[in-house]
Amino acid sequence: MVEPPSDGPSDATTGDDAFERAAEWLTAPTALMSLSIEEARVVVGYMSPRFIPADTTFIKEGDAHDEGFMALILDGEVIVESITVSRTEPVTIRVLGPGSVVGEVGLVDMEPRSASCTTSTDSMFAILSREGLAALIANEPSLGAKLLLAIAARLAERLRDNARKLRLYAKLAKAMHQELERYARS
Amino acid sequence: MVEPPSDGPSDATTGDDAFERAAEWLTAPTALMSLSIEEARVVVGYMSPRFIPADTTFIKEGDAHDEGFMALILDGEVIVESITVSRTEPVTIRVLGPGSVVGEVGLVDMEPRSASCTTSTDSMFAILSREGLAALIANEPSLGAKLLLAIAARLAERLRDNARKLRLYAKLAKAMHQELERYARS
Repeated sequence: MVEPPSDGPSDATTGDDAFERAAEWLTAPTALMSLSIEEARVVVGYMSPRFIPADTTFIKEGDAHDEGFMALILDGEVIVESITVSRTEPVTIRVLGPGSVVGEVGLVDMEPRSASCTTSTDSMFAILSREGLAALIANEPSLGAKLLLAIAARLAERLRDNARKLRLYAKLAKAMHQELERYARS
Repeated sequence: MVEPPSDGPSDATTGDDAFERAAEWLTAPTALMSLSIEEARVVVGYMSPRFIPADTTFIKEGDAHDEGFMALILDGEVIVESITVSRTEPVTIRVLGPGSVVGEVGLVDMEPRSASCTTSTDSMFAILSREGLAALIANEPSLGAKLLLAIAARLAERLRDNARKLRLYAKLAKAMHQELERYARS
């Protein structure tokens, strides 16, 4: 069911392969956290493999009733988008590939989903649900803390990025306001 | 040294009182996390009391060399501000009082500080340093995980808030752009 990625063969077609692939992603230097392969296998034991076909919106912005899971992309591509205030034009925020994580905001708080996630290709995921996270914290608190520190660092990074964008918007709004005032005076 | 807050007497004038006050704040329903008073006292054991006089900038935006601490306000008031892209006008983001936490972004990642924090009154804090957090996670991993989940939830809340502001700015910029186009055509 899963298309091999364009840059090489894929073996993430079964649950076992997906688990091992998830553990490998979790130990990559660019991954969410730096874990040994043994630690990563323990964390992955609390995750579930899930295949999602292309063009499926598996997280819906505003949804207050989903299970609050986080998804590690093993294969495929996900488009993360958010509807503007006007509720007419979706704004693409990010396009993410293997090794990236989506849904971590909804995993750690109980609010409605802040963005929508849609597969642009057939994709394979390792899913961590709220129940899985709670079980990991209860049974392996050190690993749970390590995962949560990594999630918090990821959220902090996104917060910094948003703060930069807000400052740019503030500057843009100020420049436009000045230009409008010049027009109004002339 | 600490002025009593205007709404009642304060006893956070000594380290011991500050510790107990910090533990009480950590158990408040509106607090960062919901802990029993016993758990809160354990967490507070990894924090240090610190008195900071009025008008002191104790976290500086852009600072890449501070110790990466988080501060729970026990008494007093803190103004959190960020310099705009133009580096001329500071923008006040938030004014925070007792029970609030500042510096949690810098605690969980290693990036330069994203905003400046200045006391507007004499203030008393309970400080959690990176070393304190690491020791808490090592010695009390369940409590460490609980604290990190609370910090992650706080960061997620701020991320949602920023995303709302970004959408509003995007709407504002679009409206101003349309107005400018009307002026340009007329």
